[in-house]
Formats: sequence, structure tokens, C-alpha cells
Amino acid sequence: MADYHKPDQQTLQALKDTANKLRINSIKATTAAGSGHPTSCASAAEIISVLFFHTMKYKAQDPRNANNDRFVISKGHAAPILYAVWAEAGFLKEAELSNLRKIDSILEGHPVPKQAFTDVATGSLGQGLGAACGMAYTGKFFDKASYRVYCLLGDGELSEGSVWEAMAFASFYKLDNLVAIFDINRLGQSDPAPLQHKVDIYQKRCEAFGWNAIVVDGHSVEELCKAFSQVKDQPTAIIAKTFKGKGITGIEDKENWHGKPLPKEMAEQVIKEIEGRILGNKKLSPALPVEDAPAINIKGIKMPSPPNYKLGEKMATRKAYGLALAKLGHASDRVIAMDGDTKNSTFSELFKKEHPSRYIECYIAEQNMVSVAIGCTTRDRTIAFASTFATFFTRAFDQIRMAAISESNINLCGSHCGVSIGEDGPSQMGLEDLAMFRAVPSATIFYPSDAVSTEKAVELAANTKGICFIRTSRPENVVLYGNNENFRVGQAKVVHQSKDDQVTVIGAGVTLHEALAAAEQLKKEDTNIRVIDPFTIKPLDSKTILENARATHGRIITVEDHYYEGGIGEAVSSAMVGEPGITVTRLAVSHVPRSGKSTELLKMFNLDKDSIVKTVKAVVSQITNAK
Amino acid sequence: MADYHKPDQQTLQALKDTANKLRINSIKATTAAGSGHPTSCASAAEIISVLFFHTMKYKAQDPRNANNDRFVISKGHAAPILYAVWAEAGFLKEAELSNLRKIDSILEGHPVPKQAFTDVATGSLGQGLGAACGMAYTGKFFDKASYRVYCLLGDGELSEGSVWEAMAFASFYKLDNLVAIFDINRLGQSDPAPLQHKVDIYQKRCEAFGWNAIVVDGHSVEELCKAFSQVKDQPTAIIAKTFKGKGITGIEDKENWHGKPLPKEMAEQVIKEIEGRILGNKKLSPALPVEDAPAINIKGIKMPSPPNYKLGEKMATRKAYGLALAKLGHASDRVIAMDGDTKNSTFSELFKKEHPSRYIECYIAEQNMVSVAIGCTTRDRTIAFASTFATFFTRAFDQIRMAAISESNINLCGSHCGVSIGEDGPSQMGLEDLAMFRAVPSATIFYPSDAVSTEKAVELAANTKGICFIRTSRPENVVLYGNNENFRVGQAKVVHQSKDDQVTVIGAGVTLHEALAAAEQLKKEDTNIRVIDPFTIKPLDSKTILENARATHGRIITVEDHYYEGGIGEAVSSAMVGEPGITVTRLAVSHVPRSGKSTELLKMFNLDKDSIVKTVKAVVSQITNAK
Repeated sequence: MADYHKPDQQTLQALKDTANKLRINSIKATTAAGSGHPTSCASAAEIISVLFFHTMKYKAQDPRNANNDRFVISKGHAAPILYAVWAEAGFLKEAELSNLRKIDSILEGHPVPKQAFTDVATGSLGQGLGAACGMAYTGKFFDKASYRVYCLLGDGELSEGSVWEAMAFASFYKLDNLVAIFDINRLGQSDPAPLQHKVDIYQKRCEAFGWNAIVVDGHSVEELCKAFSQVKDQPTAIIAKTFKGKGITGIEDKENWHGKPLPKEMAEQVIKEIEGRILGNKKLSPALPVEDAPAINIKGIKMPSPPNYKLGEKMATRKAYGLALAKLGHASDRVIAMDGDTKNSTFSELFKKEHPSRYIECYIAEQNMVSVAIGCTTRDRTIAFASTFATFFTRAFDQIRMAAISESNINLCGSHCGVSIGEDGPSQMGLEDLAMFRAVPSATIFYPSDAVSTEKAVELAANTKGICFIRTSRPENVVLYGNNENFRVGQAKVVHQSKDDQVTVIGAGVTLHEALAAAEQLKKEDTNIRVIDPFTIKPLDSKTILENARATHGRIITVEDHYYEGGIGEAVSSAMVGEPGITVTRLAVSHVPRSGKSTELLKMFNLDKDSIVKTVKAVVSQITNAK
Repeated sequence: MADYHKPDQQTLQALKDTANKLRINSIKATTAAGSGHPTSCASAAEIISVLFFHTMKYKAQDPRNANNDRFVISKGHAAPILYAVWAEAGFLKEAELSNLRKIDSILEGHPVPKQAFTDVATGSLGQGLGAACGMAYTGKFFDKASYRVYCLLGDGELSEGSVWEAMAFASFYKLDNLVAIFDINRLGQSDPAPLQHKVDIYQKRCEAFGWNAIVVDGHSVEELCKAFSQVKDQPTAIIAKTFKGKGITGIEDKENWHGKPLPKEMAEQVIKEIEGRILGNKKLSPALPVEDAPAINIKGIKMPSPPNYKLGEKMATRKAYGLALAKLGHASDRVIAMDGDTKNSTFSELFKKEHPSRYIECYIAEQNMVSVAIGCTTRDRTIAFASTFATFFTRAFDQIRMAAISESNINLCGSHCGVSIGEDGPSQMGLEDLAMFRAVPSATIFYPSDAVSTEKAVELAANTKGICFIRTSRPENVVLYGNNENFRVGQAKVVHQSKDDQVTVIGAGVTLHEALAAAEQLKKEDTNIRVIDPFTIKPLDSKTILENARATHGRIITVEDHYYEGGIGEAVSSAMVGEPGITVTRLAVSHVPRSGKSTELLKMFNLDKDSIVKTVKAVVSQITNAK
């Protein structure tokens, strides 16, 4: 913005005074709470004051307005100053600040989205900038709106690689509506940060990563006002040299004060001192935003037509995912997709081909991909699907964990699950993804076994709150369901049954097809089995499983292309334990697998047709004998 | 090395010829396998040739010799050229190369440590350099030896933040014995890499991250020889401009050839062409290493003295961890520790205070910390303990997953588990760490409940193969065990019992203490319960649990400060399902928690004494009614 005019002296003084008020309220709140991070707030006081009362444009009484500038506080432990500034802006009552960290207050120890001014939870460091990238990408390319995105980072978290993934992403996509502010206060939790006050090195790193990088005195409101106006056609990093505990006598720039509230008497003394520095009483108000973000509605997204597959047709679920997503893209221009340079393996490339402007290539940076997805979906601006190999989502487990805390609605698709991928070997096999996603509180896990159910899973995921994970497979398998089959979250399907079934076998993906093949073979040998497709692993349809188990002498066999721990077998076991007469025999991957053909590996880990036949026979004879 | 002499023409030609032989063998092997990445090998042929036959010093018949230079192939999909060069060096039989990716060959699709020349498995991108940092740190500071560490990275993986964590680490610790080679072949899997051939930007990024960065033509053996000799007192990055598929007519520098073998006839034609470029027949041999790595023995590490606690004394297990680790440090100078700037919370600072030269501050970069630990422990050079908050290990799940494939013996300690940490809120609470580590095949999970058992866990972890995870808690609890109590992996302890116990309650950490308090209260009301401390969650002592459950009317209650999925309750359920007459009632964290006092949160999620009392009464009356 070339039209920078230095704010008048009165405004500058008011910004300084506001910074000191924020400082005071951060100290008060943490001392009242008996815990928290006042020194991490104090270093950012001038930054926050200038951002919220000079630079950013937003409606203070409507923090989640689509037109507002976004603010992400990546250094989430500085939450008290975020709360203080929203009190200063009039959205929170100042008295509420003293309830910081209490069990009945929305003002938690770290920001969470029950606060209307918080779009993404922070507190695990290094994650804010990736989310900010998603917001900025959405603003620039999907909303094509004026709102800008500001992200405050601490220097400690700049050691996190996820920050540099986001830095590379932002410059690659020329996110000129994105501003990162690095609060270089020199001190980490237990030691000085590695670069201490070497702001020139931070500047070099930012520039090398393609950013416009400006070094400022982070306690000078004048310098900050000027720096925020110097934006270019690239993302801007404000490298603010600050002091931890700034303005707090005896603590400023001192070690061993991270995450420690001031004792009450000390706080009172310090507050008096800081009050002495407040020279005016001008109340500042933020500028209002340009109202040019389009009104959108992402509810009730329906596929334009039913599935169009033929029973028995061969199709890998990973490909069915790509086809379904491309199709869903026609239902709403707010459906977007992204991938980590595996789009020709996950088949998200099929979406890209039909909707190139709504596909975001995130390159090999899974953490950032998940964060970008989270950012894109904030304020319900988009329905995002992000894909990579199932096992590579382990790279982003912390981001996924935080996404649940953020109440995010992202959809993730992990392909190449299990040993059935074959020759590439264990590094590429998703064998712990079910365990991981099951331990995410808000997660729904789809594990479709054919093309029709994959298409249904994609449609359901788009309309399901929380984090949706779709697990797809590499091998081609036959279409099992008719195009009009109805699927629901938490509803299993009995795919093979007779009146005298001896066992209920639960499979999913490739193992469902192996179970069906086993059923055919066993039938020839006069043993009938029931076969269940759980469709969703979380929630699990315990009712259907239990009913069918009871109808088959209480016997359940689970077969899964996943490690034993945390997968289908454990989910079923936990649902069935204590049910009288129910037994669960589990087949799963018992140790680190290796390279080999898909069929060889399924055999090696007892997941193939023959192993299921053998296990059924053993289970039937065991319990028969036991009778 | 100032003594660089240009190799003679014959040697240069032999290096070129060797590169072409490696190219041929990579093509042959992948065509024979029907899958694999010949084009990713071809771009690195000259780099590998020069490294293995001009630059590196090693014993070709003893790849794991402690004195050898290390080589890490971070772009693990180029495995065929790694195998080809070890055949060229004489360690592998050339005929074995054609067994690539077969189920009975050690030559898997990606490198694994069953190959003596592979220290760390790769295949999940961006992880090699962190491990190389651990090796280089060990060489420089612990072994104080001459061996050097070389790491080959692809350009696609340079988008991974973990690479930049490692870059920052290496320059911070001035690892001048570390050389990274960036194979900038322009093309990723599904698209060009974001920076394509902009080697100047890579150079700027490396320099900004504190490295000596040299741009070379990656297909010029002369330039490579020279560059490898230009080392400084900082880590060196060789930025090699290369072409994917180099030397393969019709494929070189072309998209859509990632991970695709050449069809047989095409391969034969191409091999003929490349053979035509081989002009000499000089066989090269590697230079031998300086033998100055100390002989060490890390087996059978014993604490210098038994624990020294008093029954009933209050001590958080996180602090007991720090004390134990500091003590173990006196047992062997090969015990090392590292942390991610949380050492004053995990108490690893107590180790640092006593053994400063064996503590590595990894700053807030958990992925790299785990990779460094893996690197430090290769070739049994150290026993490494890495600590941070339990939940922040989710950041490194992919590294931990790969550590299992690497057959690594790292020890990880996660503090601040569960809602019992209190006010900091959910972002800091480890609630999925048991699920995560249970799904790691080689993992042993210690969950000590007092100071004595924590000390024992640390000692056992040092001597246990595979990945050890120690879960510690923030609240102070009383010492339960005598100093002479013996602990074993997989052995639970019955900590409270009588002859007429009605229920077996399984708790761990804070919930074990709540269970014991519940037992005291229930006793007053004439209901006796049995209480079990599992000590290790994996392996789980199913036998002890089952025996005690049978002795207490088949009733089990599990109480855990963890989400329901993948934790103690599911482990116990999976072990007990199908056992006649056994019921399992589970108490765990049911949804994303919030800030509040530790005691308030334990109560909110039914994990406190009162909730256990209530649950015991319900279970006892239910089953009594059911009779």
C-alpha cells in the first residue's frame, strides 16, 4: 500500500497506551489464574495493539464475519493478550478476563474455537501459519475478496519444520494477502531460542523462502504501523525484535520466566508502573472491512447423479475416490481438493482435471497440506478434501489432533492402505492409520470396499461434521453394491448370508473380498459363513455386528489389512467384550511387513481367502469341541 | 580439505563408467521387478559413483564398521542404485540385483536395515537428513572420530519441513562432518517440484540456514569430485543440478515417468546405448577409513544403585524420570538425552545438569529430535532418550513409524499425559499417545505410576530392543513401591487386594492413585476391590489381569487418562474378549477436554475416586442383578 501516512501523534500514543493496557490485562489474568504466560504476551503487546487498532479491518462485534481480516495466533500460549484485545475491542467483557483458565470460562489456557474470534485452536506450536495459508489462499483464489490474513508466530516455534513448509507454500502461490509477524523475543521455554536476536538471519531465511521480509523494533508502534503498510506482490514477514516480558521490571529479557504468572504483590507493583506509562485516554476503534466476500452455502451437498457402476466391474477404491470427488465438484464450486504430490496415486488428479482452479497442489508437505485444508474450511468457506497415502497422514498427526480441537470439518483420504500395496514395502503401507484416526475424538472413518460405497463415502464426508477419513486401497476389486444402495454413517452391510451361517466374518477393503471368496469356497464344503462390511469403522455398527454374531453361534472373525492394535479387531473386541457367548478371533498384520506381491503378502499375514477358510474351520471346530 | 587434487583422467573416466553401470543395473533390476523408480536412480548415478568410489572411506566387505563413513539415502525410492553400488563395491552379488522387490530377497522396494549397508529405513521422504544429523553429532561429539556422514536427498522431499529442521540443527551444532547432496532433478511424482531447476534459490535457502552451499552439474564427475573436497567448518550442501532419467533416451527430463520401470524391449535398447558410453574397464575401489572410532559396549546397562525413595513420599513421575535418567547417565557414558525445549517440564534438565556434554537440545522440532535420536543410536553407538510432552510425539509419528521399520532402539519419554495436566488445556494433553505407540510394532510402552517404577522403567528401557515409550504424569503422587521391588516388561502388579474382592480395577499413573483411594473408601463401605498396575501397556500382562478378573467375579473396570480408543481399555478388552464370564467396563476421556483444574477435569471425565466408587457399585449391583 503506497498510500502510507504516518498516524498522528495522538493515535500513536493511543496505540502505545493500548499496548500497555493489553500488557496489564495479560498480567492480571494470569496472576488471577495462577498459571499462564504473561511474558510471552508482553513481547507482543505493541504488535497486537497496532494490528487490532490500526492495521486490521474487522467488525469487533461479529468476529467471524466473512469479510473480516483474519488473525491467527500461532503462539497460542499468548492467549491472554488475544483475550485482552477482544475485551479492548468491546467483544468480551473485561471482567471475564479474570476467569482465564477456569473450568466454566470460554477463556481457556490456549485459544479454542468456542471463542468466536478464534478460527483455529493453537497451542501446539508451528501450526498457525499453515492454517493462515489456507485462509489466504481461500481469500485470494476462492472468495476473491479483500480480507487479509495476519499470523503471529513466536521465535521458538520457528524451529518447527511445518513453519517452513508454510513459508514455501505461501510464496509459491504468491499469497500477497498474507502477513506473518515473527515475535522474536529471544527466549524459548527452557533456553534462549537458537538464533536469539539475530534478526538478520531470520530475514535471510524469509527472503530465501520468497517472502518480503521487514525487520522492525517490535516495541515501536511507529515502525510497526509503517511495516504493515509496506506490502508487495508476495507474502510479507514482519520480523519484530522484541523482549520477552517487555515492560515488566526485573523480568524483561530474563530467562526462567516462561509460563510463569507474576506473584500477586509483584503483579500489583508492576501494573502500577505500567499504568504510569499510559498517557492518554483515547479509545481506538478498528476500521471496518470491505464487504466483498461472497455469500455461500456449503450445506446439503448432493451428488448430481447416483453412482453408475456395474456389479462385478473391477475398480480400485482409490480410483473410485477420484471419480467421486470429481463428480462432487459439480455439486458445488466450494468443493476443493488438495494433495501432496501423489495425485496420480490417490487419483485426486481426476478432480484436478475437471476443476483445475479448485485443486491445490501442496507438494510433499503433509503437515502443511492438512493445515491448509483446515484454513480453507474455516468460517465454512469451503469443503476441503486432502489426499495422500494413508500412512503419510502420520506425518500430520499433530495437525489432525489439533484439527479436532479446532472443531474442523476437513475430509482426508488416505490411499495405499495395508500390505496389499505390495512391492513398495512397509514405508508406503498404511498400517496404523485406523489406530490414529480412531483416537481423534471428532473423527468419522469410512473404509469403503467397492466403487459404489466409495462414492457414497465421499458424498457423506462432505456433509459430516468433524474430521472425516476415507481409507482407500490400491488393488482392483469388484463392485459389490447396486447403484441405488443406500449408505449411512455407522451402518454396516451384511453382504453374504444364509440361514445356517456358522461364523460372522468382518472384512473391509481387500479383506472383504477375500472373505467373500472364502465364503464361496466354504459353501462348496458345506460350511456357510456370514460376511459383514462395516462401511464406517468409527462409528462402528455394533448393533448389526452383535445381532449377526448371535445368529452365527456368537462367533466373529475380523480380518483387516492393518496392524492388530487400534484397528477393526480392537474396535469390534471393545464393542463385544462382556457380551455373553461372543468370541472374536482376529486376523491382522502382526509385525513390520516387507516387499512382495500383494497376494503373497496377504497370504504371509493370514489375510487371504485360504487363511480365512482355515480360520473359519478352526473356530467352528474349536467351539464345537468346546460344547 | 585444502589438498584437493583433480583425479586423473583414467579415474574420471572410471567414475563416469561406473555411473553408467549403476544406471544400467538400476534399469535392469526395476524392469525385472516390474516396478520401481529407475528415473530417480538415473539422476543420481554420477553422485553415487563419485561418493562411493572417490569420496567416501569405508570397508566394502563390512558395511556396518564403526569407522566407515555413513551414507543415508533419504530419497529411498532410489534404492536400486544403492543396491547397484554395493554390488559394484563387491558386497552384494550382481545376480541378486535381479531379485529386487521379491518376497524372498533382502532387496526391498525401499532400503531397510536387514541390508547391512542400510542404517535407517527410508521411503517416507524428508527423514534421512535428521538421522544423518544424529550420526554426525555422534561422530563429532561422542565418538570424536574421523568418519563423515553423507546424505542424498531428492528435490521433491525438500518441501518437507523436517528437512529444514535438520538443516537448522546441523548448522547450529556446526556439523562440519556432514554433507547433504540435493539431487535436483526437477521432477516430482506427479508434477515438477515447486522450484524446478532454480538451484540459486536452493543455494540461498541452504546459506540462510547456515550451510556451505555449492552448486554443481550433478552429472559432471569432475565437478562432484571437486565439490566434495570443499568442506568448511560448517555442514556442506552440494546442490546438484541433474535430470530425472538422465541418459535414458526419450525419458530424460520427461514427466510421467516417476516410479515406472522401462518395458523390457525399451530397457534392452536403452541399456545397449548406455553400454556404448562405457569406455574403460578400470575397477574402482573405495578408500579405507581411519580406524579411530572407540570400541564401545552398550549392553547390560545397570543403575549404579537401587531406587532411594520413601513409601508415601510425593513425587511426579515426570520428575522421577529426570532423576532416573541422570542416575543412569552414571552407568554408561553412552547414555545420552535430548529434548525439544521442554526440559524443565519433562525434567530431562536433571540429566543435562549432571551430564551436560551428553545432552542435545533439539529445540521445538520434534520430528528432527526423533530422527536425531535414531541417528545417534545406529550401529549401537549410544543409548538415546528423547523427551517432550507426550502429545507432541504425535508430531513425529511418521518418524516413529519409520523407526520401527529401521529396527531402531530409541527411548522416548512423553510427559504431561492426560487431562490431569489441568489448566493448559487440550492442546497440551497427551490423550492419543497410547493409541499411537501401541500401533508401532516394535514398541514397548511403560506407564509407571510412582517414582520407583519410573526408575525401573528407565533402566529397563535402556536394555529393551525396539522403541520404548515411557508415559509420565504431571501431578505429584505418592511412592507405592519399595526400593527393592522388581519390575519386568509385561509384568503387572496387584497393588491392592483382599480375599473377597468384588471387582478388579486397572489404573495407571494418576488413575491408579484414584483407584487406590476408591478402594480405601469402598472398604469403609464393606466393598473390597482389587487394584492392578499394569506397568507396561504393551506388552500387556493379560495373564495376571485374567487371573485376577476371574478371582473377582469376572469383573474388570479400566480407568485411564487417555481417549477411549487405542488405550488401556481397548487393550484389556481385546485381551479379554471371548473369555467366558469376563466383563470390562471402561472409564476414559470421551471427547475433547478443556481447561480447568486437574481435579475438576478428572471428575468431569469420571476418572476420579468418586467416579470409580460409583462405577464399582454399579458394576457390582448390575451383575448381581443379572445373576
